[in-house]
Amino acid sequence: MKIKNDLLLRTLRLEKTERTPVWIMRQAGRYLPEYREVRAQAGDFMTMARNPEMVCEVTLQPLRRFPLDAVIIFSDILTIPDAMGLGLYFVTGEGPKFKKPIITEADVDALPEIDAKTDLKYVMDGLKLTSKTLEGEVPLLGFCGSPWTLLTYMVEGGSSKTFAKAKSFLLNQSKAAHKLLQKLTDASVDYLNQQIASGANAVQVFDSWGGSLSPVMYEEFSLTYMKQIVDGVKAVNPEIPVILFSKGVQHNLAKMAETRADCLGVDWTTDLSLARELTKGKVALQGNLDPCVLYAQDEVIEKEVKRVLDSYGEGVGHVFNLGHGMHPDMKPEKLGILINAVKKYSQQ
Amino acid sequence: MKIKNDLLLRTLRLEKTERTPVWIMRQAGRYLPEYREVRAQAGDFMTMARNPEMVCEVTLQPLRRFPLDAVIIFSDILTIPDAMGLGLYFVTGEGPKFKKPIITEADVDALPEIDAKTDLKYVMDGLKLTSKTLEGEVPLLGFCGSPWTLLTYMVEGGSSKTFAKAKSFLLNQSKAAHKLLQKLTDASVDYLNQQIASGANAVQVFDSWGGSLSPVMYEEFSLTYMKQIVDGVKAVNPEIPVILFSKGVQHNLAKMAETRADCLGVDWTTDLSLARELTKGKVALQGNLDPCVLYAQDEVIEKEVKRVLDSYGEGVGHVFNLGHGMHPDMKPEKLGILINAVKKYSQQ
Repeated sequence: MKIKNDLLLRTLRLEKTERTPVWIMRQAGRYLPEYREVRAQAGDFMTMARNPEMVCEVTLQPLRRFPLDAVIIFSDILTIPDAMGLGLYFVTGEGPKFKKPIITEADVDALPEIDAKTDLKYVMDGLKLTSKTLEGEVPLLGFCGSPWTLLTYMVEGGSSKTFAKAKSFLLNQSKAAHKLLQKLTDASVDYLNQQIASGANAVQVFDSWGGSLSPVMYEEFSLTYMKQIVDGVKAVNPEIPVILFSKGVQHNLAKMAETRADCLGVDWTTDLSLARELTKGKVALQGNLDPCVLYAQDEVIEKEVKRVLDSYGEGVGHVFNLGHGMHPDMKPEKLGILINAVKKYSQQ
Repeated sequence: MKIKNDLLLRTLRLEKTERTPVWIMRQAGRYLPEYREVRAQAGDFMTMARNPEMVCEVTLQPLRRFPLDAVIIFSDILTIPDAMGLGLYFVTGEGPKFKKPIITEADVDALPEIDAKTDLKYVMDGLKLTSKTLEGEVPLLGFCGSPWTLLTYMVEGGSSKTFAKAKSFLLNQSKAAHKLLQKLTDASVDYLNQQIASGANAVQVFDSWGGSLSPVMYEEFSLTYMKQIVDGVKAVNPEIPVILFSKGVQHNLAKMAETRADCLGVDWTTDLSLARELTKGKVALQGNLDPCVLYAQDEVIEKEVKRVLDSYGEGVGHVFNLGHGMHPDMKPEKLGILINAVKKYSQQ
């Protein structure tokens, strides 16, 4: 389908554009009252995520309010381990949990191979319906979690502050860890390619916990597998842009730029001018306003948006985004201020 | 008092030494059964922290088990806001809390000036007793929290994942924020100088949450004030080494090295070779093993210790430490493996 507003795609291809495109991580989410209504109807998170009509509805909600340059399919990074039988559930205030976490190498061996087309059909149905409803207005993004980030939840059995179990698994059972990461990588390649076949115009890999690893461990246990994912997507879909986002990795950006990824997400702790220096124009950069700026007064938001645009400077390849997702207690109108500021200042 | 093992102090002065000194953040803590015994006797954390005999006992406990090159006085970074009347208390599993958080500029104005000598006499008594009991065996470290890190707890009323309130305070009430940071800075200078007068041979500023800020905000709201603290200590105690530790700041290390600090703490997400490059030999560097390595098998710990030593490479100015504190569920004997490995490999 022809995309009417293809500003994001042109930026990801490092083409010269009329202004900086903007989309926001977790732009579909709890900060929107209309999202909370759907969520209340669904009862729980996974019921909503498994319902294609609801997925389509919440994916498109932010676009009705704001002139965004992309939408991202509403789903969760943990769909793959859930499809592998770990039993994903959510506890309010504690985040995601798994009924059957991975403890031993035998647990890894016992994980079934999954086929995204059938085992994650609900995601594909959501994408198809959303793509159809969207009618090419803006690009539709697909996504997956990085293998390392998925491993943390699978081994910890949920969220963690220290990643004590997940890192122990890497250090003490590295053979099992690599086996698990490879299984997740293979599943993710298939998953993203199926998402593209179902209507995704670009894809992002979320490595939320890449920044918890030392540079050496990051390279061995996270980046290597993300590189495989990029290669696996490019092998089937060479034209589809791939964005890698490892939160909190700063200097590893240089190594990330050596993959065939088209764009790297950058959080707010790395100045975009430094990120450009490290990545040497090989990739587009996406980011990087501190989400907490959305708690600020309107004029402060405008000032900080301008600062981010200025820190990127002249030239192609900047996608405006936050350095992390929206928070549930943010006011929707603040996002409007942000988007208008991006459009206003980046055109100048 | 003459220090018998002054390896740490010589390293902080960038002198050539026979091996790499080692001490560990939170080496006195819950992972030690003898600590848990004292804590149980005390009943609650602050009762223990306010009792000089208990402070002396738990400060020296790790030195009885391990051939450490320094001890650090047992206390808490939140003693200053507590002395200012915010009412510090601890809830098990939730960390520190304040009964009266800071909300408005009027709250900042109402904070009393404190005199560390009298208002934090219990800290000084603990230092004096520990210094006397230690008899100069190894250096005794004093410490404080950074003004920004203290502000986060004072404004949030406790711990936070996003620092939404603390960052909103910086962005929306920046005049009040600077006023608060200045009050905390002035109190911290007095506090550290009093600690030195009471027996501390070196001091460390813990900026646990510096890494949550963008580089621009880090410089304005955290580093500026830590620099004042370094200057304030050096003005009274030019011979006393000052260590700054901002967790998760990576590239800001270059700016930190421009203060008069003697040493910078480095967490495990920045390779020490990069940290040396950024700081150009101006300061010693302290770190930077991922604490989670202490969950690993003995031979993995040895290998990872060697890797950290190798990443620093040849030359003066490396203090071995973890990149963050010990965790309560760690096994004491693992720390012994680490310390022996540091001594063995750094002598070679």
